[in-house]
Amino acid sequence: MNTVTVKAPATIANLVCGFDIMGLCLNEPFDEFTVSISKTVGVSITNLDNFNLPTIANQNVCGVALLSVLKNTTLVKGFDIISNKKIMPGSGIGSSAASAAGVVVAANYLLGNIFDQDKLIEFALEGEFLASGGKHADNIAPAILGGITLIRSHSPIDIIKIASPELYFVILHPQIEIKTSDARKILPQKIELSQAIQQWANTSALVAGFLQNDYELIGRSLQDIVVEPIRSRLIPYYLQLKNAALQSGALGGGISGSGPSVFMVCKDKNIASNVEQAMKNIYATTNIKFKTYISTINPNGVILM
Amino acid sequence: MNTVTVKAPATIANLVCGFDIMGLCLNEPFDEFTVSISKTVGVSITNLDNFNLPTIANQNVCGVALLSVLKNTTLVKGFDIISNKKIMPGSGIGSSAASAAGVVVAANYLLGNIFDQDKLIEFALEGEFLASGGKHADNIAPAILGGITLIRSHSPIDIIKIASPELYFVILHPQIEIKTSDARKILPQKIELSQAIQQWANTSALVAGFLQNDYELIGRSLQDIVVEPIRSRLIPYYLQLKNAALQSGALGGGISGSGPSVFMVCKDKNIASNVEQAMKNIYATTNIKFKTYISTINPNGVILM
Repeated sequence: MNTVTVKAPATIANLVCGFDIMGLCLNEPFDEFTVSISKTVGVSITNLDNFNLPTIANQNVCGVALLSVLKNTTLVKGFDIISNKKIMPGSGIGSSAASAAGVVVAANYLLGNIFDQDKLIEFALEGEFLASGGKHADNIAPAILGGITLIRSHSPIDIIKIASPELYFVILHPQIEIKTSDARKILPQKIELSQAIQQWANTSALVAGFLQNDYELIGRSLQDIVVEPIRSRLIPYYLQLKNAALQSGALGGGISGSGPSVFMVCKDKNIASNVEQAMKNIYATTNIKFKTYISTINPNGVILM
Repeated sequence: MNTVTVKAPATIANLVCGFDIMGLCLNEPFDEFTVSISKTVGVSITNLDNFNLPTIANQNVCGVALLSVLKNTTLVKGFDIISNKKIMPGSGIGSSAASAAGVVVAANYLLGNIFDQDKLIEFALEGEFLASGGKHADNIAPAILGGITLIRSHSPIDIIKIASPELYFVILHPQIEIKTSDARKILPQKIELSQAIQQWANTSALVAGFLQNDYELIGRSLQDIVVEPIRSRLIPYYLQLKNAALQSGALGGGISGSGPSVFMVCKDKNIASNVEQAMKNIYATTNIKFKTYISTINPNGVILM
């Protein structure tokens, strides 16, 4: 086989309390990438979407990720990518991770699956680094592995999949720009030990909530006292959004990655639909363009189409 | 019934990375308390052991805990306690928690179990406060509930029981004095955000390890980069003890509570016995008196005898 097309899903990083360690794979929205083995050296990129992303390989997330793959194999000279992105760059739901993870999984398939998941994550992280200036795998890991992932360690890479009960995620993406690097700069270097203890109580309890199928515990544990108070200032009407969602029955929620998307976790489809409406109502009164999604958890990550 | 005797077990607080939020109930060692309904007002205490603990109610952990019970009921005037402690006070394996939890559970039984577990924890915490100057439930909760407990929140109290695979705990108690309040004073008020992230990655992964019966993951997650580097200085030969235990097959381990006891987690009885011997060998070369225990997890907490 010389050509494959993959579906590369959006992801939610941090999951409220799990800053820099937790992530989750969504079914909606997702990108499509067609990757082919090329007879020429390097990576060529053709964009089908209107996001005007760079087509020079070392300036493009997909390009950088596949250059990293090429550095580790002599089986092929190059790849051609046809990119059809639907996850808006800068939305905070893992657009760059979908790009990097998508093409890396596709390329590995074309190479006969010679690389294991840790290696794929490593290659994809090169792409993520171009986009965000950091090598955080909290979007990449769930994009590749699917489900909910916990990153215990980056070096060596140690990623744990966490099962969970059925959950619905409502995402509202306000179309404003927040750069990941800026969202990182405003965080403090140090935090109170007492705050840290509360945060690790919540992350631990959230894992217990997922694994014990305890919706109430999931809801109680979705509390972030470290990052949310600072980053939420960057998102217009954040508190109103969150309060409206909670009043409509959401278990909890917060900022997706470094924002601007806000996500809310719900027990069932009906509640999710009410929560979506309540969030839409808040933003309908503003001049900010926005988009909403409802998604369940995607257990598979990037898949061939 | 006017008299009951309870078995009140030792507990391990913190569980390495889970500072101030995790605790675990042991089968060995344990205290025995006989509590009777009294016709006179207040709490009387008789010690059968040789620890010379105060017998004035408001200066004794058991006394304070039962005075707190008496404040919340008019059913009885007072209690008599016969205390037969085997868990040495100041050992770091929840001696004061065993006292407080033991008599509170006994008194509740005599009262017809009118108080729920949260209330019992609240009463026992009054006793714990006398001993340590803090109201941390990480020993009290497992002593009352049994098993492994996670304290998501103290106010309101939110305690989660965590199932786990069979584990053996080897405890070495060096007979030196470390006051909980002193061990707390040397901790920093603030920590690096990056350290906090690593710690909540480990606490979350430890919960996943317990609930997924993953021994290797439990071992990898038993890492404390916040408290151990500071408190371990108070325990002679700490690193030697830990290294010897790890080399003998322990999954991991650390300081029990605020010390001085050190505990190591093992997958089976044989390994536990090798680990105990290795730890004994280290301390045998010193002048410090010490005691060792091997225990499995006690799923029940305080029970009637």
